[in-house]
Amino acid sequence: MRLLRDTIAEIKPLNQECMVQARAIWDSLTHPIGSLGQLEELTIRLAGITEKPINRLDKRGIIVMVADNGVFAEDVSSSPQEFSFLLAEAMARGETGVSSLAAHQNAEVFVVDVGLISDETYDSRIINKNIRKSTGNLAVEPAMTREEAVQGIEVGIEIADKLFADGYDILGTGELGIANTTTSSAVLAALTGASVEKCVGLGAGITMEQLEKKRSAIERGLKRFDVKKADPIEVLAQVGGLDICGLTGVFLSGAKNRKPVVIDGIISSVAALAAKRICEDAAHYMYSSHLSKEAAAKFVLDELGLKPVVTLDMRLGEGSGCPFTFGILDSAIYAMTHMGTFSKTGVGEGVLVNIREDV
Amino acid sequence: MRLLRDTIAEIKPLNQECMVQARAIWDSLTHPIGSLGQLEELTIRLAGITEKPINRLDKRGIIVMVADNGVFAEDVSSSPQEFSFLLAEAMARGETGVSSLAAHQNAEVFVVDVGLISDETYDSRIINKNIRKSTGNLAVEPAMTREEAVQGIEVGIEIADKLFADGYDILGTGELGIANTTTSSAVLAALTGASVEKCVGLGAGITMEQLEKKRSAIERGLKRFDVKKADPIEVLAQVGGLDICGLTGVFLSGAKNRKPVVIDGIISSVAALAAKRICEDAAHYMYSSHLSKEAAAKFVLDELGLKPVVTLDMRLGEGSGCPFTFGILDSAIYAMTHMGTFSKTGVGEGVLVNIREDV
Repeated sequence: MRLLRDTIAEIKPLNQECMVQARAIWDSLTHPIGSLGQLEELTIRLAGITEKPINRLDKRGIIVMVADNGVFAEDVSSSPQEFSFLLAEAMARGETGVSSLAAHQNAEVFVVDVGLISDETYDSRIINKNIRKSTGNLAVEPAMTREEAVQGIEVGIEIADKLFADGYDILGTGELGIANTTTSSAVLAALTGASVEKCVGLGAGITMEQLEKKRSAIERGLKRFDVKKADPIEVLAQVGGLDICGLTGVFLSGAKNRKPVVIDGIISSVAALAAKRICEDAAHYMYSSHLSKEAAAKFVLDELGLKPVVTLDMRLGEGSGCPFTFGILDSAIYAMTHMGTFSKTGVGEGVLVNIREDV
Repeated sequence: MRLLRDTIAEIKPLNQECMVQARAIWDSLTHPIGSLGQLEELTIRLAGITEKPINRLDKRGIIVMVADNGVFAEDVSSSPQEFSFLLAEAMARGETGVSSLAAHQNAEVFVVDVGLISDETYDSRIINKNIRKSTGNLAVEPAMTREEAVQGIEVGIEIADKLFADGYDILGTGELGIANTTTSSAVLAALTGASVEKCVGLGAGITMEQLEKKRSAIERGLKRFDVKKADPIEVLAQVGGLDICGLTGVFLSGAKNRKPVVIDGIISSVAALAAKRICEDAAHYMYSSHLSKEAAAKFVLDELGLKPVVTLDMRLGEGSGCPFTFGILDSAIYAMTHMGTFSKTGVGEGVLVNIREDV
């Protein structure tokens, strides 16, 4: 509990002065002011995050939290539970989608077991931080104790703190764990007060009958405790998953260390929202990546005050959207540091503000 | 006229067999089938374009067509006309937005004067294909003759043909030219029959008074001829611009050469639509890039049957969105050629189809 408490205490707002400096750099470049849109806004916020007007994102990683979920017993997934384990192994060997997409953007993937049910010995590249072998079934009992939820968050803080100390400039967030859209939808409904209907989706392949079971499991879970009175940690303990807890910690660590953390899909977004509800200022240190096809994806990004930067209809998870944000930030930083300036090109600054009509 | 006619005659549909082969490769990779969304679809279509299941996009360029527009006389722009020339020079020196964004993605920028009004001698890196020194004022007269429109299209075909012959694997499209959202909106309204209201935007900086003048200029232009009976070349000649004509040619060349061509903002999109209306099959060879903030941007992409892949609120033009599509295609190709296969990882293919619920 102490690591979490200290982390929250150290989170500060963005450095406005550095953001002003970064904006001044953009405004000096030969283009209609603001016409590079999010490329400008993303790097200006980055200056506020790192307290440096110009940044480099040379060393980047993606933390993938892996955990099993007791709500699997409610028949909310079409896959066997052991696939959490098998895919974590494939990922550790570099064979899954995020492995390739991360490698292409020079990012390393760190696979963390925070709650796998499997007893098998696994690939030594998987980081063992197992807190318990799967959570409980949220439909009928708390997914975990409050202490375990805090432990999960602290695993995320600890691992991200270590990577930032090792020189990582940016981290992405991913997850693996059968039934983890059920836990995510439950946490989203609890944190926002939105209807289960609004928070739940078909996922990658469940039947309409299973969707009904998924809704029912979440609704029963939310009736077990006083949702309105529950703080975010209580919500995570009651209906969350250890993967979500771990990622919540990664977001909090980024904010504490003044480093950007990138959101992937719905599960990662829900962890980001939990981090924001734990500490409002943490949200300023988060970057979006893609917009998945699920309706709730936009809802949770809206709650975070973020817009997606790519729209590729992906629904893989694993952190697979994060590398695209790394690449877009690289482009933005390159433009910011390589474009000509008004004073150099001799094009009038005041006039060029409105020079182009193209939109 | 002959080059255009021959080009159209050589445009063929996508190679379905190669697309089936590309899809089979994706379906063999360790991920829920289809869960990488557009990454899969973009590379599958690329196979249909190039007739090779797996592709590399090593050599890439962006063709920027530069031209002045006579409708400038109607006070539809907030910038002086000479900025078309000054910015083309800055671009040739590598100092504008597209210069940096392209360089970061290893793409070269080719600046082509297809209709600048300026008499000044310019940077030798600008390719001189000037057809006339600015078009006429579309509000009161045809922007150009039908022959000049064809000439403009053929300049685009010729330059793109040359680049593809030189080994370029993919081209992007950009433009520079004061008042060219006015011409684009006019062409869009004429090609689609949509209201001027729907096709026109505020651009980067005109006043409400100028917006009214812009609408009026377009409406007067569209009344000068029988829009419903006009073919796409007649539309381009009556209310288009030489930059739009040139880019229309680039899109047609891509389709003829079985190479992908990337769309940037509204002007480039309108040229793509003109190419599609000239030859329906040409549309299959086009890729979108970003979605600009202007309402008509989505409208014209819808007409093209395309969805944007990045959403960065950019409104610069110049072809500045194209490099993002180069980067995303690179990622997709890398994943397609580096992910593990079901047979290798030992994860059951039939089961993994539905393994992940994350969306």
